[in-house]
Amino acid sequence: MSTRVTHPRVVPLIAQRWSPRSFDAATLPDEDLAVILEAAGLAPSAYNVQPWRFIYARREDAETFARFLEPLVEFNQSWAKDASVLLYVLSEETTASGDGERRPNHSHSFDAGAAWALLSLQADALGYRAHAMTGVDFAKARAVLNVPEGLRIEAAVALGRQAPAERLPDALREREVVSTRKPVSEIAFEGAYPTSR
Amino acid sequence: MSTRVTHPRVVPLIAQRWSPRSFDAATLPDEDLAVILEAAGLAPSAYNVQPWRFIYARREDAETFARFLEPLVEFNQSWAKDASVLLYVLSEETTASGDGERRPNHSHSFDAGAAWALLSLQADALGYRAHAMTGVDFAKARAVLNVPEGLRIEAAVALGRQAPAERLPDALREREVVSTRKPVSEIAFEGAYPTSR
Repeated sequence: MSTRVTHPRVVPLIAQRWSPRSFDAATLPDEDLAVILEAAGLAPSAYNVQPWRFIYARREDAETFARFLEPLVEFNQSWAKDASVLLYVLSEETTASGDGERRPNHSHSFDAGAAWALLSLQADALGYRAHAMTGVDFAKARAVLNVPEGLRIEAAVALGRQAPAERLPDALREREVVSTRKPVSEIAFEGAYPTSR
Repeated sequence: MSTRVTHPRVVPLIAQRWSPRSFDAATLPDEDLAVILEAAGLAPSAYNVQPWRFIYARREDAETFARFLEPLVEFNQSWAKDASVLLYVLSEETTASGDGERRPNHSHSFDAGAAWALLSLQADALGYRAHAMTGVDFAKARAVLNVPEGLRIEAAVALGRQAPAERLPDALREREVVSTRKPVSEIAFEGAYPTSR
């Protein structure tokens, strides 16, 4: 594992967060999972609607775990099979209004992403790692996991304790490095979005 | 300010994060803003595409700041005017593929939400607060801020140093409390989404 070079004042938990692929296939204590999910739920959301929902399978429940693994693309199945917990992050696309009608929520995915970020940081803080995936057959996920309409499937997440890269097959082992980031100058602009982009 | 009761193992920065409305109308050093944006950019994203973009206005640039304030609904303008920096979080809806085509990105909003969460935590860690808003006239924002098509406007964010609630007008002062959260049992489900919901 290499490490990212970040400004020294970046929160260490944020700087060191990482989504590896090598997991140790151990079980994860229920209480730890509850703390991780509680942290996710502390995310901010528009009008405090908290549109995020999570469904999950623990690996000790082999049948359910296999069902949660199935919608992942083959590549992701090959390593996520060793996660301790598989989750799907869902979001409620509409919000109940005072008049009983449900109205579209502009930020249901955005807010669910904030919850996912906190989930990831809390996992790291407890000694685990979390890896989100959109390499998912979403139609299959909806069918296999029986996700009702009105809930968007945002991503799947592998959660567990990180194992050495050596545990991975060759092709994956080489890719087990932290990813780089665009410099701030390419993601943030003062006054206006650059017209040349 | 009241505080949330959370599990003692929840990361303090996550447990204490808060999006208040009372800001002190001071300027925010450029270096602090750069660190906050760098932390945002450390978020995970599908295929490391990093679809988040930020445009921002510093309050010392009064003309730009006023332009960034204008698309907010009146209620949000009434307090966000005292932020040090106003930002808009954007996301690239499509991603360039190897063949030169741009394809829809399933998680552009979700990933931008993760970046927003890290932005918020890093702001708190540096002694500031961040408050996201979707009480925004998004069409006006696109026009006034000249946001190109292909970039979704996810939310506006007020960033600054928190001021005492007493600084707010009466109606807002009463609302300057931390919001509650659903229990984990209402957002996370083992095995399947409950059919009764």
